Amino acid sequence: MTNKGGLEGVIVADINTSYIDGSKGKLVYSGYAIEDLAETTSFEEILFLLFNTRLPKRKEYEDLRRTIAANAAIPKAVIDMMKSLPPDTSAMAVLRTAVSMLSAFDADAENLTDKEAAKAKALRLTGQITTICAAWIRIAKGQEPIPPRKDLSVAENFVYMMSGDEPDATACAALNVYLVLLAEHGMNASTFATRVVTATGSDLHSAIVAGISALKGPSHGGANAEAMKMFIEIGDVDNVLPWFEKNIKSGKRRIMGIGHRVYKSNDPRAAILRRHAEALAESSGERKWLDIAVKLAETARADDYFVQRNLYPNVDYYSAIVLYMLGLDIDMFTPLFAMSRISGWSAHVIAQMGGRLIRPKANYVGPHDLEFVVIDQR
Amino acid sequence: MTNKGGLEGVIVADINTSYIDGSKGKLVYSGYAIEDLAETTSFEEILFLLFNTRLPKRKEYEDLRRTIAANAAIPKAVIDMMKSLPPDTSAMAVLRTAVSMLSAFDADAENLTDKEAAKAKALRLTGQITTICAAWIRIAKGQEPIPPRKDLSVAENFVYMMSGDEPDATACAALNVYLVLLAEHGMNASTFATRVVTATGSDLHSAIVAGISALKGPSHGGANAEAMKMFIEIGDVDNVLPWFEKNIKSGKRRIMGIGHRVYKSNDPRAAILRRHAEALAESSGERKWLDIAVKLAETARADDYFVQRNLYPNVDYYSAIVLYMLGLDIDMFTPLFAMSRISGWSAHVIAQMGGRLIRPKANYVGPHDLEFVVIDQR
Repeated sequence: MTNKGGLEGVIVADINTSYIDGSKGKLVYSGYAIEDLAETTSFEEILFLLFNTRLPKRKEYEDLRRTIAANAAIPKAVIDMMKSLPPDTSAMAVLRTAVSMLSAFDADAENLTDKEAAKAKALRLTGQITTICAAWIRIAKGQEPIPPRKDLSVAENFVYMMSGDEPDATACAALNVYLVLLAEHGMNASTFATRVVTATGSDLHSAIVAGISALKGPSHGGANAEAMKMFIEIGDVDNVLPWFEKNIKSGKRRIMGIGHRVYKSNDPRAAILRRHAEALAESSGERKWLDIAVKLAETARADDYFVQRNLYPNVDYYSAIVLYMLGLDIDMFTPLFAMSRISGWSAHVIAQMGGRLIRPKANYVGPHDLEFVVIDQR
Repeated sequence: MTNKGGLEGVIVADINTSYIDGSKGKLVYSGYAIEDLAETTSFEEILFLLFNTRLPKRKEYEDLRRTIAANAAIPKAVIDMMKSLPPDTSAMAVLRTAVSMLSAFDADAENLTDKEAAKAKALRLTGQITTICAAWIRIAKGQEPIPPRKDLSVAENFVYMMSGDEPDATACAALNVYLVLLAEHGMNASTFATRVVTATGSDLHSAIVAGISALKGPSHGGANAEAMKMFIEIGDVDNVLPWFEKNIKSGKRRIMGIGHRVYKSNDPRAAILRRHAEALAESSGERKWLDIAVKLAETARADDYFVQRNLYPNVDYYSAIVLYMLGLDIDMFTPLFAMSRISGWSAHVIAQMGGRLIRPKANYVGPHDLEFVVIDQR
């Protein structure tokens, strides 16, 4: 048998949450093209869709939004734990720890078998992750966190909790689109991690903690942070061409956020996020980062190397601009990814519950039949 | 392509840490039969073996023991976090949270690429997990935790930190054997989870947290707890036969801790643990639990159903007796498993670092081409 190190092409589950056709640049959530959903639905509607394989009616949506907002507060003990951490702690490490700790305060945390209980826990965690992310932004700066409001959506609550000001509509719309677009993406590495954990019969918090642990990796959730670091390094739209010549044409580096393991055509999410980056630039009057990103993408599109290999800006490329313009530090980019992906993870966890243990094989290549020698004679 | 839900038979890595021949009841660590290692080596020697594919010389062993003990203390902030949890919190949830939190206080936590740094972190975590486990036993009972001593081995330190008394030699020997036997076991579900996380480029703490999350599942690390619950339910050696008739012969239930997905013959670890259960019974004068376990195993061995299916007591069966006789509550059984398996997990993590992203496929079976309808028209 050959070593399937990356498990490429190995099918591990039947799913009904998302369908990706990388060659056509197509992403579908439970039958709906992402382009149809992105500008017309709230993140809460997507959560409902991923959990129920249908879109909610108005009342179902309102109930869901209210349930999430009403359960989004986090216990004082979790806030205290966050305050006890060094302010330069990786925000993903903070999120991983806080989500893990929340299980101790969830009366249903150790209910391992009931899918309805798991759905309810996932909704609580969705709101709580939003609150953790906003709270850490403030705690890391020495500010008191602001508790969530019961009348707001996930996107609105996050924007509100960052500052305590009435949330700005353009910012909320951009964040909502981001949350919708990142919610679910087939059998990626973090989603697979949540399934490996769930397949042992473990609990939802454990599964989500494993998802956060996997998403934290630079090869997975860290890509938009790397893209933003690159834009900051370029620093000015006039530097794009010389930077491209020096770093990319020379073959020394690759452009972060261009190209994707699955999409060999346009990533449908990129164009939508670019529009919201435009809206944020418009409303704030700050075009610098968007101009750099657009100019760099155009430069790449005019280059044979990128054309021949079908390398297009992916979701990370323009989401970096959107998140940065929302006022987020780069360290918060991956936590925001988790804040969206909790929806897809939870849908996969619930589908995996009661399923078979996931236990592949290893190929032993070490020594055989060694004679044991006691320590003082070695 | 068929759905490989459990990934049975799919090879995902070459390893040199352990070799299992389930049909022959054989477990080998880097070339050494487990029977040769169990009674002759300390857990620290096994850690060295798994990290270096050879056994340590005396000085290497002393250095390793000293390094682990010298770094086993945990920050006050982590102790405070543990004290803030409800005392009935799942001990595995406590361990998961504390290990996650420890990364914030490890200066090398976000070093994602250096394998030597990862080894050093793994040694720190090995000692710290020992301390967390012992601390939680005391904190959950409202007692102050006892800090680790620098002159003790992992097994000795744990026994010491449980009570603060000079550790008992029979107890330390039994715990050491348990730690040696559980250290590594090929590509099990929790080890695979650590590799899935590491393959994204994530950090060691994240990988170990994912391992703990997977081990927490009743189908994985929870089996010895289930075995002990069964022994307690039986309650007396005279109840074994009627209990067997009523629950097992009737086909209503199965015996927890008898039979194994890999071993289709004796689990070599079971016989060794049984000897230490005997020693603990001898030194304590309490034979009740061992007598129940032995009588039940004999009853099963005399039954055609178990003989025909090659169902033997596995590592969980007698480890349940050993851990219970060491004075551990059932809730602490799986954390003790993690306290040992951190060694195997870390060896796998280090081997996986820099490897390919693990990203299998899903098979979409949901609806296609649905027409989007806005919320108020659904």
